[in-house]
Amino acid sequence: MSLPADDGAAEKSSNNNDFTVTPWEVEGEVDYGRLIEKFGTQPITQELLQKVKSMTGEIHPMLKLGYFFSHRDFDWVLDKKEKGENFYLYTGRGPSGMVHMGHLMPWMFTKYLQDKFDAKLLFQLTDDEKFLYGQDRTREETRRYTYENILDIIAIGFDPKKTRIIVDTKHIEHLYPIATEIAKRITFSTAKAVFGFTNSTNIGMIGFPPIQAAPCFLPSIIEGKNTPVLIPAAIDQDPYWRMTRDVADRMGYYKPAQVHSKFLPGLGMMGKMSSSRPETAIFTTDEPEVVEKKVSSAFTGGQPTVALQRQLGANALGCPVFWYLRYFFDTEKQSDERMLKCKSGNLLCGECKADLAKGAKPFVVEFKKRREKAKDVVAKFMYDEKPIEP
Amino acid sequence: MSLPADDGAAEKSSNNNDFTVTPWEVEGEVDYGRLIEKFGTQPITQELLQKVKSMTGEIHPMLKLGYFFSHRDFDWVLDKKEKGENFYLYTGRGPSGMVHMGHLMPWMFTKYLQDKFDAKLLFQLTDDEKFLYGQDRTREETRRYTYENILDIIAIGFDPKKTRIIVDTKHIEHLYPIATEIAKRITFSTAKAVFGFTNSTNIGMIGFPPIQAAPCFLPSIIEGKNTPVLIPAAIDQDPYWRMTRDVADRMGYYKPAQVHSKFLPGLGMMGKMSSSRPETAIFTTDEPEVVEKKVSSAFTGGQPTVALQRQLGANALGCPVFWYLRYFFDTEKQSDERMLKCKSGNLLCGECKADLAKGAKPFVVEFKKRREKAKDVVAKFMYDEKPIEP
Repeated sequence: MSLPADDGAAEKSSNNNDFTVTPWEVEGEVDYGRLIEKFGTQPITQELLQKVKSMTGEIHPMLKLGYFFSHRDFDWVLDKKEKGENFYLYTGRGPSGMVHMGHLMPWMFTKYLQDKFDAKLLFQLTDDEKFLYGQDRTREETRRYTYENILDIIAIGFDPKKTRIIVDTKHIEHLYPIATEIAKRITFSTAKAVFGFTNSTNIGMIGFPPIQAAPCFLPSIIEGKNTPVLIPAAIDQDPYWRMTRDVADRMGYYKPAQVHSKFLPGLGMMGKMSSSRPETAIFTTDEPEVVEKKVSSAFTGGQPTVALQRQLGANALGCPVFWYLRYFFDTEKQSDERMLKCKSGNLLCGECKADLAKGAKPFVVEFKKRREKAKDVVAKFMYDEKPIEP
Repeated sequence: MSLPADDGAAEKSSNNNDFTVTPWEVEGEVDYGRLIEKFGTQPITQELLQKVKSMTGEIHPMLKLGYFFSHRDFDWVLDKKEKGENFYLYTGRGPSGMVHMGHLMPWMFTKYLQDKFDAKLLFQLTDDEKFLYGQDRTREETRRYTYENILDIIAIGFDPKKTRIIVDTKHIEHLYPIATEIAKRITFSTAKAVFGFTNSTNIGMIGFPPIQAAPCFLPSIIEGKNTPVLIPAAIDQDPYWRMTRDVADRMGYYKPAQVHSKFLPGLGMMGKMSSSRPETAIFTTDEPEVVEKKVSSAFTGGQPTVALQRQLGANALGCPVFWYLRYFFDTEKQSDERMLKCKSGNLLCGECKADLAKGAKPFVVEFKKRREKAKDVVAKFMYDEKPIEP
């Protein structure tokens, strides 16, 4: 079953205009259908899904179930691939805290794309941006999170031969020449309109977007020929790519293509899972007991009493526990059954929470082991193949 | 004789408000006295000159004759030196064209300071800025000028053991971490007020000033302790240091000190000698015949006819030929005599032009030889001691 693109959030508040999506802030219950209109992106159609299936033999659950729901030129990248032009993948992470399960989803999908399309991947850590944005954030803090986040990225299982991690402050010499080419073509007016900069924005933040745009053109430089790039990332990063696409032509490069994901909600409410509300996020470094506790305190789509739930049914699409199970641990069939049972009042929230805990506890135990192993191979993944300090 | 700080330009047009001085534009006849007020810098006093003399045994002609006419904390740097704290020198060049004699003057003074105070020097080439500023300027163009300008810098005779050249796009990894620390502390409002940015300024230019500020704090990082820095440079660069001084305290560094020079006029009129009017500038790569021709076509402070000149005298202080001779080839005594003879009508412009050609022709011949020798030692001077492509 394919769920509507405007999922639980929209169902709960279809007339609610009260949401904000920028690269630095996601607030409120996001209406993804409206976001497609607002950002001017394309919805992922059945035709596109069939195209993917014709090339890979299958449709990844995150595409089929609508977690990746929007794109720009994803079809074009696939056409290019069919004609023998390989594409690079490019995605990133702002190291402002530890990694939680919400972060892993686009990365897991990126690894899937890497495997299926035999694609090289650039993975950027924007430690400069996170330092510039957080008024009280120290360089030491972003340095530490950068290292910790790299362990999570490697633990995803990317191919070390085909993956290079770029840390902005470490590898700036590779980005800066391209970034100045981009920056020269973007006026303050444009940047203000795209990113919402004001007079009180610091000039580091104003100068930053070209640094995030630069890896879109790096593959063409590495390969010595114009090279398509596909960016799997949450939709809040779209302003960067809108800006980048505007200058690509003038610089003689292909426009970077994107496939946009929704945000995985936190356990506390629908919305983007946030590191700044740690009690509502399952971190990859959480102990199993902590995971158990967070899951048992989770917000659900349930009714106030068992009797009411049996009578009225509950709101699966507005329940973060449902979505965690759907994207991480249930098969599609299990998830569809769960939704029907939930809606009809034949499933209580305690049961779903127990299922989630049963999946999430071994998940973090296993992931922590992979993070430990990652420590030995960090240098292999770095852009310059030099180690990075813990 | 020490000339008044507001020299020929002011004498010629003391009520003329029509001059502009920014890092990217110097237009009109500059009133240096008013510039001191406008920029809030300090005039170089007799007391300061005596302080210099007490430490070096002499007063360099460029200080004595008012070519360096303004400062911030130059006295403080000298106090620090007396107490055993060595200072770094830092100056720079925007590689937007070939080097002419006007550029050499602050560099010659910088070399003098290096020798007298046994000071280490950082010399920055802002190739990124020049690329970002010139709408039609290509990276290839700034790359080529960067190399050519480096030959001129080395030809000045700086101590290779104590001098490091920084090319922004080549050595950005050393500047970027400091630059983001600076950028975080400067809002767009502030940058707009200091540099005159507008909505149509590109975001590269807006993000650039912290890159020029970064070498002010690099010595403290290199030396592992707070280290005074003295910047000898033309006064049009002052906005950068005003901005840098504002953030230095908050970053735990000394405020960088400056000593500001006037602009050497072009041969065509009083004002800054400009590479964009090549017929009025003597380039270090000009052939002697070309120098001869440029000098013979020079604008002077003379009268329309010989008879009038004999009768009324001429305007030495408003004559570029006089200033070239004064700063490059005359002794102080010769120059003072020349001025008196000129003012009293006992000297014709042709005589001064002949003297200038006599000085300048062997000067460029000798300088070109030094530039050739410089080619063999470029790597020695580079910040990372790696060669740079011609």
